Amino acid sequence: MTETPTATRLLRAQGVTAPAGFRAAGIAAGIKASGAPDLALVFNEGPDYAAAGVFTRNKVKAAPVLWTQQVLTTGQLRAVILNSGGANACTGPGGFQDTHATAEAVAAALSDWGTETGAIEVAVCSTGLIGDRLPMDKVLNGVRDIVHEMHGGLTGGDDAAHAIMTTDSVPKQVALHHQKWTVGGMAKGAGMLAPSLATMLCVLTTDAVAEPAALDHALRRAAARTFDRLDIDGSCSTNDTVLLLASGASEFTPSQADLDDAVLRVCDDLCAQLQADAEGVTKRVTVTVEGATSEDDALTAARVIARDSLVKTAVFGSDPNWGRVLAAVGMAPITLDPNRISVSFNGAAVCIDGVGVPGAREVDLSAPDIDITVDLNIGDAQAAVRTTDLSYAYVEENSAYSS
Amino acid sequence: MTETPTATRLLRAQGVTAPAGFRAAGIAAGIKASGAPDLALVFNEGPDYAAAGVFTRNKVKAAPVLWTQQVLTTGQLRAVILNSGGANACTGPGGFQDTHATAEAVAAALSDWGTETGAIEVAVCSTGLIGDRLPMDKVLNGVRDIVHEMHGGLTGGDDAAHAIMTTDSVPKQVALHHQKWTVGGMAKGAGMLAPSLATMLCVLTTDAVAEPAALDHALRRAAARTFDRLDIDGSCSTNDTVLLLASGASEFTPSQADLDDAVLRVCDDLCAQLQADAEGVTKRVTVTVEGATSEDDALTAARVIARDSLVKTAVFGSDPNWGRVLAAVGMAPITLDPNRISVSFNGAAVCIDGVGVPGAREVDLSAPDIDITVDLNIGDAQAAVRTTDLSYAYVEENSAYSS
Repeated sequence: MTETPTATRLLRAQGVTAPAGFRAAGIAAGIKASGAPDLALVFNEGPDYAAAGVFTRNKVKAAPVLWTQQVLTTGQLRAVILNSGGANACTGPGGFQDTHATAEAVAAALSDWGTETGAIEVAVCSTGLIGDRLPMDKVLNGVRDIVHEMHGGLTGGDDAAHAIMTTDSVPKQVALHHQKWTVGGMAKGAGMLAPSLATMLCVLTTDAVAEPAALDHALRRAAARTFDRLDIDGSCSTNDTVLLLASGASEFTPSQADLDDAVLRVCDDLCAQLQADAEGVTKRVTVTVEGATSEDDALTAARVIARDSLVKTAVFGSDPNWGRVLAAVGMAPITLDPNRISVSFNGAAVCIDGVGVPGAREVDLSAPDIDITVDLNIGDAQAAVRTTDLSYAYVEENSAYSS
Repeated sequence: MTETPTATRLLRAQGVTAPAGFRAAGIAAGIKASGAPDLALVFNEGPDYAAAGVFTRNKVKAAPVLWTQQVLTTGQLRAVILNSGGANACTGPGGFQDTHATAEAVAAALSDWGTETGAIEVAVCSTGLIGDRLPMDKVLNGVRDIVHEMHGGLTGGDDAAHAIMTTDSVPKQVALHHQKWTVGGMAKGAGMLAPSLATMLCVLTTDAVAEPAALDHALRRAAARTFDRLDIDGSCSTNDTVLLLASGASEFTPSQADLDDAVLRVCDDLCAQLQADAEGVTKRVTVTVEGATSEDDALTAARVIARDSLVKTAVFGSDPNWGRVLAAVGMAPITLDPNRISVSFNGAAVCIDGVGVPGAREVDLSAPDIDITVDLNIGDAQAAVRTTDLSYAYVEENSAYSS
């Protein structure tokens, strides 16, 4: 049942409708004042409806997160409705009723359309400004319209990927094709990329045959290695949701290892797309910590460096200021020996055993991709975190208007 | 032995030479390429030489921190030599030898000048770029010169306060006069204001009679309530040092409570001066968390909010985006109930029981002083953290050149 890696193809022009058994749509429902697309639907035609999800670890959770966590306890989903233009977070019991009413409306519209569906089979995701109630007349009208716009072809997935954008400048989607089965996905998010779960909304689809437990295993493993290690500004959204739906339409059952690998590859690619389009980004930065006594220590140290404003502003200025990296790693609550730490920028050693290397101040960091590697030299464990620089544009995007 | 609070006067035009028994000086020794003042000396004429200090909790400690921690084990100091223009951090054994040689040179120069002094009685503080060795010929020539520039009058303290500036735009000093004794202080630092110990270099002086243990108690208590709760960018320097020297020249022994109170007031005022001059500041922000189950929880939550880039950019844009405050507090590893959290901006309620208040988006945050108060409504404990907004100027100061 195992295929060779060379039999796979990763295509960025495709998304959630690349696997068989899925339709999707994206429309402008009038939720956004701009008139841009703001409502998306992903529909699983079956024959299977297995699903899994991972959610924000923020204690302040938006109504759609609370709803979707509940419906996913069944391990089954027929549809996901997503809106941009409002997070429906910090909106109290009224906001939760709005989410519930949205799921009911999707179920009714799909039933009218010909597929008997219950609200408990409908996940809801929202993104946008925290604290405002959604314009429910527009949401409910949009739900009635969108079921008639669903396409199984690639345009359906593309429309959906556009409709979930907020401050994103480009849609993010990708599909990984195996000979007999496919995994597709779309994601949005460029701001609240997070410590515990990055971003964002992400819907993954596959036509593989897989039990909910198998999907859950693959999704948690992949999220921990990808979205969880994308840290743009240390902020963690109230709405972060990643869902994985399996239609079984390929009638092919991959091994757990192959499923794990495919979901990881799709998440990793979406993660790279999110990093490249993060708010205000001028440089894509990967911070790798190696030689740690544990992977946890390596990850903690990489995260502290990736979040450090002084490191991030230095990278923006193309300044090889390795002392700020040392100062950051010294704040991490991990085991380390300051006299054994080495640092390199894009492969050039700038600090060895805690002391600067001659010429370190002349290392060229003008390229858009910056690799910061810190070797603690006290163990064998390593971990990497993706981040970006801290630029004028980041400040502008986050200060000039409410988002 | 207790004086009434009304008998005290707080004067910002005075610093480390306000108490009797201290001389100070600041000169341009050529360490900074700009030719600005870069070497300061604070000298305790006695009759007592009791001293205490608190230091950065960064595991990567600069050579002068390692040296000064050692010499302070005696509880005695005659002098503090401070340089700007170079942190002498991450400079290896050679850097430590430079610190040692500086202390030896100060001791020799003071002995020549007429006061027999040993290197072990001399604290050393450095600030500036991490990773470069100091130009020791200039440092040692400067040390020989500076002992002849010492003044007991206010100009001595003022010169010293100027000579320790780096990206500071103004010197920071203050003196608190009681009828019979005085506490004075100077500080520098506007960038690496920190999680565990803010900034920076700070020297406090008093002419009170006090044992090292009494000074240590007063200093630790004050630092925990002031510098420790000033968090500009979450970064913690390799060089943070706060020293307190007592000359006993007033021949007055205050109670521990009075000493504690005086040191706290001086530290609190210096802290406010550091906040007001922080890198890129356009708004001074105080984040207060109340109604927590413990002071630790309140402090943790206040710190998470104060460090959140999305909160800080919203404040820069005068945007009353209370949803970002909720999202930030929801990330804090503390006990909370999201449905009981209330938030106010400058006294105006914007969120009650986790839900927005009508009109919250119209609250005016254009003033330079912003108060963010979060009530968790589950306990009686509270804590406050001072911070600033995140502005274009912060990015510029930290990206345009190495610092």
